[in-house]
Amino acid sequence: MELKPIQEIAKSLQIQESQMDLYGKYKAKLDLSLIDDNPKGNLVLISAVSPTPAGEGKTTTNVGLSMALNKLGFKAISALREPSLGPNFGMKGGATGGGKAQVLPMDDINLHFTGDLHAITSANNLLSAIIDNHIWHGNALNIDPNNIVWRRAVDMNDRALRNITINQDDKKAPEHKESFDITVASEVMAVFCLASDLKDLETRLGNMLVAYSLDGTPIHAKDLEVVGAMMALLKDAFKPNLVQTTEYTPAIIHGGPFANIAHGCNSVVATKMALSISDYVLTEAGFGSDLGAEKFMNIKTRQAGLTPKLAVLVATIRSLKYQGGIKVRELNEENIEAMIAGFPNLKRHIDGLSSFGMPVLVALNRFPTDTDQEIEALTTHLAQHGIELVVSEVFSKGGEGALELGRKVVEYCAKDSTIVRTYHDDDSILDKLTKIVQTIYGGRNVVLSERASKQLESIQKNYGTLQVCVAKTQYSFTDDAKALCAPTDFDITIKEFRVSEGAGFIVALSGTIMTMPGLPKDPHARYIGLEDDGSIFGIKG
Amino acid sequence: MELKPIQEIAKSLQIQESQMDLYGKYKAKLDLSLIDDNPKGNLVLISAVSPTPAGEGKTTTNVGLSMALNKLGFKAISALREPSLGPNFGMKGGATGGGKAQVLPMDDINLHFTGDLHAITSANNLLSAIIDNHIWHGNALNIDPNNIVWRRAVDMNDRALRNITINQDDKKAPEHKESFDITVASEVMAVFCLASDLKDLETRLGNMLVAYSLDGTPIHAKDLEVVGAMMALLKDAFKPNLVQTTEYTPAIIHGGPFANIAHGCNSVVATKMALSISDYVLTEAGFGSDLGAEKFMNIKTRQAGLTPKLAVLVATIRSLKYQGGIKVRELNEENIEAMIAGFPNLKRHIDGLSSFGMPVLVALNRFPTDTDQEIEALTTHLAQHGIELVVSEVFSKGGEGALELGRKVVEYCAKDSTIVRTYHDDDSILDKLTKIVQTIYGGRNVVLSERASKQLESIQKNYGTLQVCVAKTQYSFTDDAKALCAPTDFDITIKEFRVSEGAGFIVALSGTIMTMPGLPKDPHARYIGLEDDGSIFGIKG
Repeated sequence: MELKPIQEIAKSLQIQESQMDLYGKYKAKLDLSLIDDNPKGNLVLISAVSPTPAGEGKTTTNVGLSMALNKLGFKAISALREPSLGPNFGMKGGATGGGKAQVLPMDDINLHFTGDLHAITSANNLLSAIIDNHIWHGNALNIDPNNIVWRRAVDMNDRALRNITINQDDKKAPEHKESFDITVASEVMAVFCLASDLKDLETRLGNMLVAYSLDGTPIHAKDLEVVGAMMALLKDAFKPNLVQTTEYTPAIIHGGPFANIAHGCNSVVATKMALSISDYVLTEAGFGSDLGAEKFMNIKTRQAGLTPKLAVLVATIRSLKYQGGIKVRELNEENIEAMIAGFPNLKRHIDGLSSFGMPVLVALNRFPTDTDQEIEALTTHLAQHGIELVVSEVFSKGGEGALELGRKVVEYCAKDSTIVRTYHDDDSILDKLTKIVQTIYGGRNVVLSERASKQLESIQKNYGTLQVCVAKTQYSFTDDAKALCAPTDFDITIKEFRVSEGAGFIVALSGTIMTMPGLPKDPHARYIGLEDDGSIFGIKG
Repeated sequence: MELKPIQEIAKSLQIQESQMDLYGKYKAKLDLSLIDDNPKGNLVLISAVSPTPAGEGKTTTNVGLSMALNKLGFKAISALREPSLGPNFGMKGGATGGGKAQVLPMDDINLHFTGDLHAITSANNLLSAIIDNHIWHGNALNIDPNNIVWRRAVDMNDRALRNITINQDDKKAPEHKESFDITVASEVMAVFCLASDLKDLETRLGNMLVAYSLDGTPIHAKDLEVVGAMMALLKDAFKPNLVQTTEYTPAIIHGGPFANIAHGCNSVVATKMALSISDYVLTEAGFGSDLGAEKFMNIKTRQAGLTPKLAVLVATIRSLKYQGGIKVRELNEENIEAMIAGFPNLKRHIDGLSSFGMPVLVALNRFPTDTDQEIEALTTHLAQHGIELVVSEVFSKGGEGALELGRKVVEYCAKDSTIVRTYHDDDSILDKLTKIVQTIYGGRNVVLSERASKQLESIQKNYGTLQVCVAKTQYSFTDDAKALCAPTDFDITIKEFRVSEGAGFIVALSGTIMTMPGLPKDPHARYIGLEDDGSIFGIKG
């Protein structure tokens, strides 16, 4: 489709050309001066049930809903995460929505976009280079080469870089183990997304824990005097990016940290900016509500002082059937019984979201294979539990397919509600974890591995007031990816803690979390290329 | 200083807004459709004497000269290389000229610019990831993990990545040695700069040699079916970048390969585009004329079918004194004798350039410490050898300081000359090398190490018609960095050959060429940061 010049989209938000920098014809970076201290917009979180191979359509619903609100006469903005470049060449589609509810230009957004991830990669790797260079030139800080916790980053799915040894054949520096993470797993990305302004970004970068000295003293980025240079690298990237939807409404796409070892939400500056220039901001958080929404509420909005008005929980009949025990290849067949059997998964997500004190609206992202009987049965079943279901058909109909959802959003946002966080900052780290497990996951207790148990004492002592970021499988409420639907009577085992001091949270790892993906046997890179006219084919939206 | 919107600079070249993509207010990418098949502009190479710590000012002279030609009423464009990000954090200044003869915005150009180097890094590393992934998934091509010649890249001075071992603790793939090169050393950069259009870029990327199979068969990028995806990554980067000079005249900055293991010139598409839209194009080549200009003539302009009209050789009195044996700290003192003692270095550069059949103009980049007596003595000495000297004072005076040089350029470009290459494509590889050594370096002969000698047979057989790219120290005509001025009776020892099949040349390495720089003890990163107003301080121009 023919896009509109991005200036026209900006104009619909009363943004002047002097307040933006164009990156090509259809992308722009917006000036941080557009952020109000007390923005007036309504913040709506779009979350989803546990991800399944059936597909949920969280971004598609988000984009469709913002288009619908625009159709209803409001200013509404989708505030989304920016995708990582690497996965385009593996098998995952991009993160730009689908059908008639997409953000554009899709190829650009999924590839280099405005260079934000490259800037983050550069800042991450400058810090690494400076650490090893410091050791090479005499190691005045007495850094233990075998206790460097800062890792290098690359925005590529490159399995071979998971475990490596560097500094080989160098007489002046000891070789040591190293790992490359994919860029979205870098703490620079987490910090970038949580910083309230450039000064805060600088402070947070400086506070990042990078290594320990040989006598056990923590070494931070600021000790290496590299933060100013990292800021120079990140300065332009820190401005939120404006693009458009398939219906020429605005979307702001900025920042995208992992939702397991990090908090999985777009940037605070983008969210605040969107709230400053529109009536409704539809934002999202990674994976299902147990991971993304929990962190959105307990980390992002707490740190940023934001008050969400409403959570929209995206569900699909296909994913309910999958949670009800149906195999992927049979999901297209009508199966009301299996769908109802999967309901407890949806119910637990609703309960978790409701625990935050805000209203929760369930949006059914309708697939062409969903039958009227299935939808009717689900509506009836939910009504019996006092839950209202709104059908969304934005993939096939665009904003038109979410007008009812849009009206409900307006209605719910007008309600008064008081936000409740799952834990207090002065709860102990273990209490924070236990409250998440019980309130959000519906589990029983937290079990610590020997290693985690040993770590906890010093973590509690030194970082006790930080928030907790649980790195857990996204496929289950438990720490076992195969335990579908809504298991009960389970404990969550924490194997290890990691300190993200710049981001302001302690990562609690409940299993092996992959921070560097690999490519599949038939990588999607094979199917990407340029047409004769120079346009790209094969990038998956 | 206040810059002009880049659209105004474009307008001075009759470029429409539809033919460009803005990247912020002061940078733009230009559409490839602006390239004519037979461009009418005059191509002028700005080269220099052997680099010394005294400084030569090749880029400064280039920028000042293009400003002067604009003052004289012509359309003139500086067509320069784009700098690498990494060295900003080490000790080297950027590559944007100096004083009143600079290209702007300096910080942007020296940091991320329009993302071209990031795109090249990504394309390079996608290929690496695909190679190792291929091995991991069964290795259908039978790639020898210990004979992968393709290396990963990062745009950072990161010594610790020079020699590493990857794929550790992975049961499905063997660990193997790996090295990271700085991005400008990647063959993707060389190919990017030599490709005549997108199709040619695709062909060249496919032809890059990446590994050998266990039975010795060469494996190319195209065998891994990754070239289309690399093209998607490079598509936007391939468009030349327009910026402005300190006098609001146009400059095009695009591509920047090493001048030792690669050919050290800006991109062919940028050069051709500049020739299509202006009267005079001032381009440059890395290091002194023995390295950069030789490759500009024998590789770049030969492959691209370009005919330079003139070479301007930049010299300084300080560098002549240095070649004459004076220490850096004494260069500010008048010393006519030492200056004349350094003259043979200048003379050999003139002779080398003259061997290509084009006129050579010597531009003296005047420093404040140069005395009138020195300049007069040099002018007289050169006149005795039939060489005309033109003094350039662009650092202190801008374009005004090169008006005479500009008039001479116009005069010389009007002369008829026939370009002569140092060797023919059907000369043997060894003959090509010998001709370079004798004609350009003023040396005697080529000596091959045992290894190079062994390699030569198959190189001659399989790649005999390719050009030769000598990787040699830039500080001497010889392969000994300490042999200053103009040594005679020396041989050049080639230790190793490498095949750059995509770029279309054989690299002949005369010593250990560093393809991954390190950082100094007091890295310049410490002195970079953001001002309170969000602007960057500390980047060196």
